[in-house]
Amino acid sequence: MSAEPVTRCAVRAGAYYDSVVLMQLQRSLAALPGVLDAGVMMATPANRDLLAASGLLPGSEVAAGPNDLVIAVKAETEAAAGEALARIDSLLQVRRTETGQDFRPRSLASALKQLPETRWVLVSVPGRHAAAVADEALELGRNVFLYSDNVPLSEEVALKRKARERGLLVMGPDCGTAVIGGTGLGFSNRVRPGAIGLIGASGTGLQAVFAHLHARGHGISQAIGTGGRDLSAEVGGITAAQAVDLLARDADTEVIVLISKPPAPEVARRLIALLRAADKPAVAYFLGAPSPGSRLGDVRFATSLEGAAEDAIRLLSRRQSSAPDGPAGFAAGQRWIRGLFSGGTLALEMQQGLAALLDPAPSQGHAILDLGADEYTVGRLHPMIDFDLRLRRLRQEAADPQVALLLLDVVLGDGAHADPAGELAPAIESARAEAQAAGRTLDVAVLVVGTDLDPQDLGQQIATLEKAGARVCRSVSELVAHAARRMDEVQGEDPRSEVPAVPLEALRSPVAAINVGLESFYDSLASQGARAVHVEWKPPAGGNERMAGILARMKRSR
Amino acid sequence: MSAEPVTRCAVRAGAYYDSVVLMQLQRSLAALPGVLDAGVMMATPANRDLLAASGLLPGSEVAAGPNDLVIAVKAETEAAAGEALARIDSLLQVRRTETGQDFRPRSLASALKQLPETRWVLVSVPGRHAAAVADEALELGRNVFLYSDNVPLSEEVALKRKARERGLLVMGPDCGTAVIGGTGLGFSNRVRPGAIGLIGASGTGLQAVFAHLHARGHGISQAIGTGGRDLSAEVGGITAAQAVDLLARDADTEVIVLISKPPAPEVARRLIALLRAADKPAVAYFLGAPSPGSRLGDVRFATSLEGAAEDAIRLLSRRQSSAPDGPAGFAAGQRWIRGLFSGGTLALEMQQGLAALLDPAPSQGHAILDLGADEYTVGRLHPMIDFDLRLRRLRQEAADPQVALLLLDVVLGDGAHADPAGELAPAIESARAEAQAAGRTLDVAVLVVGTDLDPQDLGQQIATLEKAGARVCRSVSELVAHAARRMDEVQGEDPRSEVPAVPLEALRSPVAAINVGLESFYDSLASQGARAVHVEWKPPAGGNERMAGILARMKRSR
Repeated sequence: MSAEPVTRCAVRAGAYYDSVVLMQLQRSLAALPGVLDAGVMMATPANRDLLAASGLLPGSEVAAGPNDLVIAVKAETEAAAGEALARIDSLLQVRRTETGQDFRPRSLASALKQLPETRWVLVSVPGRHAAAVADEALELGRNVFLYSDNVPLSEEVALKRKARERGLLVMGPDCGTAVIGGTGLGFSNRVRPGAIGLIGASGTGLQAVFAHLHARGHGISQAIGTGGRDLSAEVGGITAAQAVDLLARDADTEVIVLISKPPAPEVARRLIALLRAADKPAVAYFLGAPSPGSRLGDVRFATSLEGAAEDAIRLLSRRQSSAPDGPAGFAAGQRWIRGLFSGGTLALEMQQGLAALLDPAPSQGHAILDLGADEYTVGRLHPMIDFDLRLRRLRQEAADPQVALLLLDVVLGDGAHADPAGELAPAIESARAEAQAAGRTLDVAVLVVGTDLDPQDLGQQIATLEKAGARVCRSVSELVAHAARRMDEVQGEDPRSEVPAVPLEALRSPVAAINVGLESFYDSLASQGARAVHVEWKPPAGGNERMAGILARMKRSR
Repeated sequence: MSAEPVTRCAVRAGAYYDSVVLMQLQRSLAALPGVLDAGVMMATPANRDLLAASGLLPGSEVAAGPNDLVIAVKAETEAAAGEALARIDSLLQVRRTETGQDFRPRSLASALKQLPETRWVLVSVPGRHAAAVADEALELGRNVFLYSDNVPLSEEVALKRKARERGLLVMGPDCGTAVIGGTGLGFSNRVRPGAIGLIGASGTGLQAVFAHLHARGHGISQAIGTGGRDLSAEVGGITAAQAVDLLARDADTEVIVLISKPPAPEVARRLIALLRAADKPAVAYFLGAPSPGSRLGDVRFATSLEGAAEDAIRLLSRRQSSAPDGPAGFAAGQRWIRGLFSGGTLALEMQQGLAALLDPAPSQGHAILDLGADEYTVGRLHPMIDFDLRLRRLRQEAADPQVALLLLDVVLGDGAHADPAGELAPAIESARAEAQAAGRTLDVAVLVVGTDLDPQDLGQQIATLEKAGARVCRSVSELVAHAARRMDEVQGEDPRSEVPAVPLEALRSPVAAINVGLESFYDSLASQGARAVHVEWKPPAGGNERMAGILARMKRSR
């Protein structure tokens, strides 16, 4: 019978070690004679659970906080455990295998002297130090690829605002993946060059799309990462907005693909507006959010990573043309959309589509009514037969000086009114005339659902509505796209205006970059033939938080 | 100067009138000399608002409840208003223009004697009377197209349960549209016959899909309406489930399309399971719900009505083949899925896809972890580089006798581990061997993201994983489909088993139907060449609720 294994652990309080060094320490300890398992982790609650689950926490309390390093060893004997712990410090001294770099600068500034053409700084130091390094890079006028995670949200917002002011990009924090001018930063796949430009608030999401595109014989122009929180309300999609603007101007990019984890609705709306203004076909995939339809003008909405790749490829070959409508010419004060629908599902799909464009809060004056809902049909025929209610509401809405756009549906077929266009057309005509007499333009668009076999004569119905001055649409998505163009006119502002341009040079190859943090990222740049310099970074005061605080206060008081 | 117009109104308490008669009354009143406007409505709150907005409510209080009819007149003079109100009763006596039907039965039973081959009864009487008529039709062994709205939910549930027991369909309440054997019921479009069978918890939704299919040169086999509440948790999708089963057996249907307003998650899951079991390609469009991905095996998810039509057409031409995996052969008690992902977006998309199959409540034992989340990466390399955490968790999960399916991802490319398959394969192999030794089967599936240009050698990575006994998938949707098949095995039950079959004869043409309610539905059947009988229906006690209550009590006490 073998004896019970013994578990022992050591703590190194508040010290900084490279994660690679720690991984190697763990492997070296586990390989020592008599050692059964070893764990080397920062003592966060999650890591403590993990150590406990692996039987690596001793019965006694281990006094260590989330910033302290725990080194645990499970061994066959007390002696083997003790011997292993005694070797920690010598093992921590082991340097990583040297890269091909002769001289290793110890600061960003000196690295820049070595490689002044650098446009990118890769930062992968631990989260609590990352913002300071990124900020230094911005101060030095460089774009930042910020791989580090566990960076506070407030620091992300501050960094991105500073970057935006200076025409620089901050990709991240927690940005795993980017491809700039053909060179992969961080985790990236080798993909052939192509005409599809990607923006991802999601690292492996980008990588999956790379792989799907490549497997189908296509390639990418650029891939800009934003970090997973960029599309939150707090950050407001600063990097994603800059990225859309960049790819819209990038001559190598023909189709833009934007993918993200669940976005804040207002940020999604703003990015959709930017994609629409980009004048290139685009695909948006907002994972976890209800899709605002299958498309909105030149923007398609995907529902999977694979689908996003497939849509992008489809768009490469058939670029859609924008609709030819001229401006409506609204008066000042006209701003709301009112929809009077007889079809409940049509109304719902319309609401869903509009939510991608407009704030649907009740305090806004937009409204899409389903007049076929139960509350309107007690003792009354369905609005597809009886137009009285719709005509009354139409007159009310038309008289409202704030209404810009009136949306209606006409559903043909058996059972429906024999001549819906005949009921609506005179009302549309007089509503438009009255608005015009009052100095306004009432834009009316009608969704016509029906076939050329229907008893009402589809062509005649459309002609009657068009003669009355209505814009006829044949699908909800066409109606949403029409409403989108009209609301662009009402809002009168170019959604791009508040984004100061990041110079296109940021995307040019060959890439030159400085790496601060994980050496493997330097190795990967070098193996791709990019010029790169690795900084031999150490945290202030060797990672001792108390000491670092004192140093920082001394610096401020100078 | 003209005098102020006068507004007067009359009330008819608790009486029943055909909606068409009321519409005609309103038009006749409005056309009388000296009358400016007229409104004839049941005095529901919504209708009262409407009358008030049209200036049709007098200053004084109008004593009328939601079951009372208000007849309001705005006229130039007191005399004209009085004269108009005096003519109400004679105008209400006016019969609609006669249809071609010689004899009009006054009950369903006598109508059935006239047309015994009838398989369908169309019911469009006012909501509070509708369930009784529908119930009578079911008792007589006929399927029901229930157009009426304002039918209480409890009555819908009772009707549908009764119908299901008897192998009959109840389409509705609030079912606007259906096409059976080529004949449109209710509101319907004329569409060419084709191979696409539709199911719609949404009337105009079905009509829009008809129109999109027809415009693209395609046609439909059947269209089965369910009513808007069928996919609620209360009703549980009874009719939709019967409809999937019917269309699965219908030889004319090659592709099934299901569309609905926002469904209850558990009902959506059940219908997806039925669609998967149908062994025909299918399209599901759950408006307002986040899409569970772009597809799940042979089921595609659309994000618009137009997109649903386009997807159905695409599926007509390329029927997908099911994957060839044999059964895993799980032991009793194995039932949970555990996912250990390094890609956050991959994990999220996987969760989203699984939610279409499984109850994701925390009380369930399924779990998809993102090991790259901030909480796991403090002081530790990303799980795409450092496999220690993943391997520890893998061993834990593999030892859990309730775990059936283990899902992993491998992300290749620069920056990632040089040989992820080499790290995982031995662990997968020994986990599977240990499970086997304990009499279980541990099914392991790995999503591999990468290209053939990546430094790790994609083909080799896949081969290594497959050799270790893992199923390799190349997209999240493929992984979801694999998980779906495995969970079918775990659950062991055919989702179809609890649906008693509705005989296919229900769908056969030529259609014979009895119509109770709106005459226009009879007209439309007749104009399509269907055999039909219209019932001259009157509510019990002429619509007087109090009297009807007394009659019902007398009937019960007999």
